[in-house]
Amino acid sequence: MTQAQIGLVGLGTMGAALALNIAEKGFPIAVWNRTGSVTESVHSGAGALSPRIVPTQTLADLVAAIARPRAIILMVPAGQPVDDQIAALTPLMEEGDLIIDAGNANFHDTNRRTADAGPVHFLGMGVSGGEDGARHGPSIMGGGDRADWDRVAPILTAIAAKAEDGTPCAKWMGEAGAGHFVKTVHNGIEYADMQMIAEVYGIMRDGLGLSAGEVSGVFAGWNTGVLHSYLVEITATVAAATDPATGAPMPDVILDAAGQKGTGRWTAIEAQHLAAPVPVIEAAVMARNVSARVAERAAGQARFGAAPGPVTITVDALEQAMIAGKILCYAQGFGMIEAAGREFGWTLDLPEIARVWRAGCIIRSSMLNDMAAALAEDAGRNLMLAPTFARLLEGNGPALREVVGQGALGGHAVPALAAGLFWFDMMRTGRGTANMIQAQRDYFGAHGFDRLDGRDSHHGPWWPQG
Amino acid sequence: MTQAQIGLVGLGTMGAALALNIAEKGFPIAVWNRTGSVTESVHSGAGALSPRIVPTQTLADLVAAIARPRAIILMVPAGQPVDDQIAALTPLMEEGDLIIDAGNANFHDTNRRTADAGPVHFLGMGVSGGEDGARHGPSIMGGGDRADWDRVAPILTAIAAKAEDGTPCAKWMGEAGAGHFVKTVHNGIEYADMQMIAEVYGIMRDGLGLSAGEVSGVFAGWNTGVLHSYLVEITATVAAATDPATGAPMPDVILDAAGQKGTGRWTAIEAQHLAAPVPVIEAAVMARNVSARVAERAAGQARFGAAPGPVTITVDALEQAMIAGKILCYAQGFGMIEAAGREFGWTLDLPEIARVWRAGCIIRSSMLNDMAAALAEDAGRNLMLAPTFARLLEGNGPALREVVGQGALGGHAVPALAAGLFWFDMMRTGRGTANMIQAQRDYFGAHGFDRLDGRDSHHGPWWPQG
Repeated sequence: MTQAQIGLVGLGTMGAALALNIAEKGFPIAVWNRTGSVTESVHSGAGALSPRIVPTQTLADLVAAIARPRAIILMVPAGQPVDDQIAALTPLMEEGDLIIDAGNANFHDTNRRTADAGPVHFLGMGVSGGEDGARHGPSIMGGGDRADWDRVAPILTAIAAKAEDGTPCAKWMGEAGAGHFVKTVHNGIEYADMQMIAEVYGIMRDGLGLSAGEVSGVFAGWNTGVLHSYLVEITATVAAATDPATGAPMPDVILDAAGQKGTGRWTAIEAQHLAAPVPVIEAAVMARNVSARVAERAAGQARFGAAPGPVTITVDALEQAMIAGKILCYAQGFGMIEAAGREFGWTLDLPEIARVWRAGCIIRSSMLNDMAAALAEDAGRNLMLAPTFARLLEGNGPALREVVGQGALGGHAVPALAAGLFWFDMMRTGRGTANMIQAQRDYFGAHGFDRLDGRDSHHGPWWPQG
Repeated sequence: MTQAQIGLVGLGTMGAALALNIAEKGFPIAVWNRTGSVTESVHSGAGALSPRIVPTQTLADLVAAIARPRAIILMVPAGQPVDDQIAALTPLMEEGDLIIDAGNANFHDTNRRTADAGPVHFLGMGVSGGEDGARHGPSIMGGGDRADWDRVAPILTAIAAKAEDGTPCAKWMGEAGAGHFVKTVHNGIEYADMQMIAEVYGIMRDGLGLSAGEVSGVFAGWNTGVLHSYLVEITATVAAATDPATGAPMPDVILDAAGQKGTGRWTAIEAQHLAAPVPVIEAAVMARNVSARVAERAAGQARFGAAPGPVTITVDALEQAMIAGKILCYAQGFGMIEAAGREFGWTLDLPEIARVWRAGCIIRSSMLNDMAAALAEDAGRNLMLAPTFARLLEGNGPALREVVGQGALGGHAVPALAAGLFWFDMMRTGRGTANMIQAQRDYFGAHGFDRLDGRDSHHGPWWPQG
């Protein structure tokens, strides 16, 4: 029997794809699934890769099939199933063996599992790219003990996507839950990128009267420019697709009620804990929640009349608005990651994170190359102040204003683009308006304030000075 | 010695004010403070109320001074101090006695404390109104066992603020942590109301060139109309105040960096858990966080140039925008409360909540009368669809569009007003744009979608149909 170099538990869509990827890269892999017939069919369906796949029918057999020190990847649903698998595997494994959770874990759970790990070590690893990514090259964000990561890095870098410069998109992000944390923020940004696309799509459809095919052409064009990215590319693809049942363009037959699995929400919640605002992501999560309220929206339209109407925005202005919005969204996201590094004491390398997102994952884009470079110059600087992006914001900001402004006047909902713009305007205004909030807080709660002139006087005349 | 009818632990600003209020309404009260000298000075400083205040120097004396079944109010810092006091008091008390936490607890803690309570019962009670409210009539939001509330209700309704129609603003909100939950949402709305005021203030100051005195006059005028409320009233007051040190208007000497104690953040986090969006509150929390980044904002201004410039918005349009924004914010807030009732199985009475906010608390306003009436008609209906508020939105919505639109074009940050507007536009659009998001999700993750025509086909042609 082949001695496997690694093991994998959970042969669902993602797990099976990952196993085939590992086998294809030359690493014999032992696999196990709760339903044994699935294990057999993955093995028998692997064609030329079958000899490198060791199907097992018990966890004991799985463990026995792997060379020591062992490493076993879990690809099971997040939450209790992960804890259950750890509990089942640990007694069968030995000191120095390693369990790797490759599911969509909440990073707080990964923190806990890392802390609870005994002789059998534990790594948390975010994997992005969907089924196709898992099969042919995902982006991998590892977290835990660096030495554990280094031990399995040869396999993980071999199966990972490669950036244009050849760098594998599989990196150790930091201690404990850092890998799953970075994956969570990735997903939050994914929500935001998709929402901004939906917003400009809405203006094209409802404001400019473009057909789905025309929308596809616009996005295909954008994909050759600054916005070159997977999500823009697939927007062109899905908008061009035809419904086999009706012959209508696919976007026109799909219900406008978005699903979600919670990682966008986790990002928003964690940003609140960190006091590191990600308003574009918050707007994107809000938009998904509201989209699901189909009946309530219909009642709203019945009461308040017509849907959004014509605008005088060019397609080029929409592209520019997307460019500016995207920069602002990522500035917020990287700001949140930077805050997490400080809060949790993790060794987060921001340029490395940008680099690991350049290929394999859903938010992969050309712009991430420049972001990695800008963060390498100064990881603590707000990305909007990096020269490359400051120039892009200067050039494209006016279009963002135009789109948000006309959206507001014309009834086109652009909450994510607006959240980017107004965050930018607050971040570039030396004298804001929170002085009024401070005056009110001092008036009703004696909370005190600081003064512009630095005088050591912290209450208004509405309180007895003293 | 006077037999006290109730006890109170914690004679800080709020605790002392509450004790004096209780004594003034005719209820003898035993008090205890960690620092005994404070107890003595509250007692000796109480003037004519001193005979109704029983100062005690040990918790045993405190408990002994209260008529059975006892009730003791805790007014100590939220968190561990509350647990510590419960642990210290419980062994001294008897079955059927009652501890009431009147601090700013996280409602999850109140849920836990209620569940953990044994023979000594536990109530969680949100108190709003600051020191002045505590002293002369706060708004009180109780949660826990209804029978426990009923027992102390005579004292609590006596000390509470009275609405214009004479109703005391002290009510049982629901089971367990419901009182502190409602208080948390109250505070989130407070953040939002203050942020919207700050936004229109900014347009008056930077866009219309109004002086602080002129701003005061505008708010004083608004306070006689639809926006009649405590926060609008005190905005007029603080804007009119003069700095004793420099002679300048107070708003002009106060640093624009807002503090916060976390309840706005709690609201945003809980709304995420409930999938009940409160984007106006989220924007307000974001704005406070950003305001605190004074140096980063200065760097932003240095890089991106001038602050916001002139606008062509009338003061009347600003008032109308505030009216619309306020309605939308409260629609979100009540929607969140409604969702919590379903999620936690609490008996939340939405009209009663609106009524309890009509006086005593920071967000008290005339509009809450109409909101209570609208919620009484149909508590499950989105407030924006209630006839009274739908008409107000029709009348004032165009001004909100104008303010957000010109804000976007002119560089005036109006994130909260914009968050209200775009939420409204999503909630009144029958055919939104999330169909594009669903197409993308299906393309990269096979997540599936529903169709407008209801056909049982849930994937695009990019997947093999099966």
